[in-house]
Amino acid sequence: MSFSNQLKGIVPPVVTPYTRDNQVDFKSLRRVVRHLIDGGVHGLFMLGSTSECVLLGEDERRALLDCALEEVNGQVPVVAGVMDTATDMCLRHARQAKAAGVQGLVVTAPFYTRTSQAETIDHFRFIKDEITLPLVAYDIPVCVGLKLQRDTIHQLVDEGLVVALKDSSGDEGNFRMLLRDFQGNPNFRLFTGSEIVVDSAILAGAHGCVPGLGNVDPTAYVRLYEAAMAGRLADAKREQDRLIDLFQMVFWSVPAVSPGASGVGSFKVAMQQMGIIENSAMRRPNRALPEAVQTRIHAHLMIHQLLT
Amino acid sequence: MSFSNQLKGIVPPVVTPYTRDNQVDFKSLRRVVRHLIDGGVHGLFMLGSTSECVLLGEDERRALLDCALEEVNGQVPVVAGVMDTATDMCLRHARQAKAAGVQGLVVTAPFYTRTSQAETIDHFRFIKDEITLPLVAYDIPVCVGLKLQRDTIHQLVDEGLVVALKDSSGDEGNFRMLLRDFQGNPNFRLFTGSEIVVDSAILAGAHGCVPGLGNVDPTAYVRLYEAAMAGRLADAKREQDRLIDLFQMVFWSVPAVSPGASGVGSFKVAMQQMGIIENSAMRRPNRALPEAVQTRIHAHLMIHQLLT
Amino acid sequence: MSFSNQLKGIVPPVVTPYTRDNQVDFKSLRRVVRHLIDGGVHGLFMLGSTSECVLLGEDERRALLDCALEEVNGQVPVVAGVMDTATDMCLRHARQAKAAGVQGLVVTAPFYTRTSQAETIDHFRFIKDEITLPLVAYDIPVCVGLKLQRDTIHQLVDEGLVVALKDSSGDEGNFRMLLRDFQGNPNFRLFTGSEIVVDSAILAGAHGCVPGLGNVDPTAYVRLYEAAMAGRLADAKREQDRLIDLFQMVFWSVPAVSPGASGVGSFKVAMQQMGIIENSAMRRPNRALPEAVQTRIHAHLMIHQLLT
Amino acid sequence: MSFSNQLKGIVPPVVTPYTRDNQVDFKSLRRVVRHLIDGGVHGLFMLGSTSECVLLGEDERRALLDCALEEVNGQVPVVAGVMDTATDMCLRHARQAKAAGVQGLVVTAPFYTRTSQAETIDHFRFIKDEITLPLVAYDIPVCVGLKLQRDTIHQLVDEGLVVALKDSSGDEGNFRMLLRDFQGNPNFRLFTGSEIVVDSAILAGAHGCVPGLGNVDPTAYVRLYEAAMAGRLADAKREQDRLIDLFQMVFWSVPAVSPGASGVGSFKVAMQQMGIIENSAMRRPNRALPEAVQTRIHAHLMIHQLLT
Repeated sequence: MSFSNQLKGIVPPVVTPYTRDNQVDFKSLRRVVRHLIDGGVHGLFMLGSTSECVLLGEDERRALLDCALEEVNGQVPVVAGVMDTATDMCLRHARQAKAAGVQGLVVTAPFYTRTSQAETIDHFRFIKDEITLPLVAYDIPVCVGLKLQRDTIHQLVDEGLVVALKDSSGDEGNFRMLLRDFQGNPNFRLFTGSEIVVDSAILAGAHGCVPGLGNVDPTAYVRLYEAAMAGRLADAKREQDRLIDLFQMVFWSVPAVSPGASGVGSFKVAMQQMGIIENSAMRRPNRALPEAVQTRIHAHLMIHQLLT
Repeated sequence: MSFSNQLKGIVPPVVTPYTRDNQVDFKSLRRVVRHLIDGGVHGLFMLGSTSECVLLGEDERRALLDCALEEVNGQVPVVAGVMDTATDMCLRHARQAKAAGVQGLVVTAPFYTRTSQAETIDHFRFIKDEITLPLVAYDIPVCVGLKLQRDTIHQLVDEGLVVALKDSSGDEGNFRMLLRDFQGNPNFRLFTGSEIVVDSAILAGAHGCVPGLGNVDPTAYVRLYEAAMAGRLADAKREQDRLIDLFQMVFWSVPAVSPGASGVGSFKVAMQQMGIIENSAMRRPNRALPEAVQTRIHAHLMIHQLLT
Repeated sequence: MSFSNQLKGIVPPVVTPYTRDNQVDFKSLRRVVRHLIDGGVHGLFMLGSTSECVLLGEDERRALLDCALEEVNGQVPVVAGVMDTATDMCLRHARQAKAAGVQGLVVTAPFYTRTSQAETIDHFRFIKDEITLPLVAYDIPVCVGLKLQRDTIHQLVDEGLVVALKDSSGDEGNFRMLLRDFQGNPNFRLFTGSEIVVDSAILAGAHGCVPGLGNVDPTAYVRLYEAAMAGRLADAKREQDRLIDLFQMVFWSVPAVSPGASGVGSFKVAMQQMGIIENSAMRRPNRALPEAVQTRIHAHLMIHQLLT
Repeated sequence: MSFSNQLKGIVPPVVTPYTRDNQVDFKSLRRVVRHLIDGGVHGLFMLGSTSECVLLGEDERRALLDCALEEVNGQVPVVAGVMDTATDMCLRHARQAKAAGVQGLVVTAPFYTRTSQAETIDHFRFIKDEITLPLVAYDIPVCVGLKLQRDTIHQLVDEGLVVALKDSSGDEGNFRMLLRDFQGNPNFRLFTGSEIVVDSAILAGAHGCVPGLGNVDPTAYVRLYEAAMAGRLADAKREQDRLIDLFQMVFWSVPAVSPGASGVGSFKVAMQQMGIIENSAMRRPNRALPEAVQTRIHAHLMIHQLLT
């Protein structure tokens, strides 16, 4: 069975838990992985933006993959991000991820040094040339400062460089056009990175979703996916609407905490309160959510019956 | 003599030359350093954006500093960038740069994971707390996606976290207001990162300039600086206008080559043609300038009497 | 029956046809109106962005309304845009539109002079205070330079200032959150301004759509709307996918023609080729689509069986 | 004497005072004009952004010009903005301004409907074709959403469409390159729209400045201009630094008041407190500055010895 047939459905970008002394907390990580797999997710995306990937050392990236793959034990496919500033840095991560045994790699445009669309395509060529694993293009302009243009996606697919796209650009109109462009193409799968338009994406032909909020409530995303795939519209919409409500906690922060730290931070606070991870801290210089917001999230989880 | 008294004048961000097989070319680097010091520059900025810093491995960053510091041999102060995605990564570079013996560190906001202004100030606090070297704040939103706001600069100075600013934001109006804000403050120095408004910046009170184009024609920037400092307006303007003309080569590229690779790439092409470096290549995935542009640059250097 | 119960479904923003000597072509306009009503649309949006509203004189705006309302003859509700740079200018248009007999007014933020969210809310207050017609908030940052924030929409609804939103912001995630926010609120209706995610919008609870492309193929949008409202998913998606394909002509232009003129221009070229309007010209300084693009559009319409 | 020889120096964009009942206050306007001419300004820019031009009716625009021209009585050249959304609207203002007797017209790109660079050049061609007055290109992307690119300026000059540029883009690096490009060209004059880098602009070859703050303190801008033109560097810088300090009042507002209303609003509050105008109100929906800010401005003017 080919990779592109395997990868589908709910593929959460797994958070990275830390111990109180700022080390990767592998015990909590295993709980996260079990929480997700028990929740029925169809795959895992390790070392994504939600994992604070660029705040992890190379050894930590490898150890995280080893631990997660062991815990997953082949139950679902695992793909790994290789985010870094330039081709050779990404290749180092890619070799390591391949050695660890992941089923595919997730690749963004380089960052800090901004690249052209042509240079970005070269970047995928260089990685594909050396690493035989399937590649997933990851479009996340808010992090890398470049939108993967529609023509670029076509070039990447036409050359056989990528088997899938994760679209976190927020440009849902463009994503919809891509869905139509590649409809019926058995070699390319499209995933939305949005938490809040998943039903629409699936109904329009997306193959799945990579929701950060899936760390908190994987079963709801699985139900949402299954309802949408089965054409049970009202069920899909009900699940999505509840998840939109759950998602609102990402907006409750204060200006001193960046939007990124407010988003991932709120997921981690929820997971700590749910007993999945020991500690909700993010790495420096991301600030923790204020106490008052943490309290508000607790009440939110109660209402959403996520605390037992 | 304190650092903030030392750092002034023309402090070029040194390019990183590579051999044909993509290794750092230390022999060429020594020639670059001598070219700059012979040209009269007042300091060197190693591992800046122009150095392709985020395309260098940690060992390479250290070896570059060791080589440059040896070649400089104390003739001018050397500061080193510690650009990376998060605090702990920057600290690793910072420790290494300190051990190498640089006189100061240059620090941007983290990137990929966008930070708030408050988190960015924390970032400087964490670095200052551990590393006793003077810090230079480096404002380069085109690379990191965040502008260091005027209030943020004030906070950094008020807490004694930074001794200088390198402003590559392109917001010359804001820079002018900062110059006025800190006029007469003996503990804070302001440098423009622009190649093309240096006379204006110096005349308005800036302490110096960090011009990428200074790699190509350091003596002209030194003459420009000295003329401006001496209030010889017409001389300063004449030098600046010639340098603006020289600078135009950064705009001669094609869309397939990113603006960054067009800029640094044109400097490297010129330096190769001038016999300073062996090879003008940049690292993957930055593309080389087309042959036709290289030819045009050659004619440009002839006109500017930079080829002997 | 209240206005907010009336307005729903497909409400195309009617184009303004001109004669060869650049006058409003009322004969063609009547054909456009009949084409749309015969196509089954549920309402008309006169003097929207697609109408080149800000290129029309005050007398022309009034004459257009009079002509359209006469031709409509009460068969469907008609709303009119009052787009202008400031409150008093909008009020002048509003009085005139009310006198003409429209059922509601469509209001954007002021432009050229950028306003704050608070000043924008004031703008709605001032208009509502004087004009008793129902107001539709129109979010189109690409034209006015301001996004109507989610909090602003809530304030407008809470104060009873608006009965509907037309969202042309392209931020479909935010629109989805608004749909959830106002679900079940009988006093507020949400319309997407997108041509290409209409099925998703309706399935997620939107009350209708304001598609520029609806000028060309109204019946397809009506079928799409009806299929989506009836929960006939596959039918809705098939219609939407065909309309996405039809829509591609807006991207066939050249850089000399602005995106706006490429979009509305392609609709007008199609309508001319379909015999609905005499002349596809837009007003100065919008450029006409090149001959080659017009030829390509002709072939496109043939394939889409829109030429008889 | 040709227009391009006439226009130079300090050319403030004249504010529009209103009476308590929101009519143009011609008595105050005459005082403003006398205040400026007595202050030694070299020309007046009527109906600029600072005048709230797009909040004025066509008759008001004409009456403002008539009043100002009468009061000026030929002592200095007067140019008039014709800002509007499209060519024919601008032409209407242009005819009227020509009839009123202004010496030149100031033209931006159209707005709301965004134009391409090519369409924008056409816009200037259409206006120049009909109106024989000299045209000044006005680059103000914050209002119109389009930057006049360097190539566009060259095209406008090469075709003889414009005799001058007012650059309010904030891109001082690009402005400096334009200054070098056109150095020695007797047919094109460059003006900065900045209040805070005037000395730098003049020293770099700019022919003058169009400072909104010049409404408050024209004599200081005149002294600044004369010092810079005479190469009295320290004097120019001292004047500029004081004006930067005076300018800070534009930043003292609250989020509910837009940056535009905070800027022009603070100028008008100052002028009211100085007894030049009766009323500092702006037109709807621009909000007035809070009382506390007005009080702070009063103290500021005392310190700057602008209250007698």
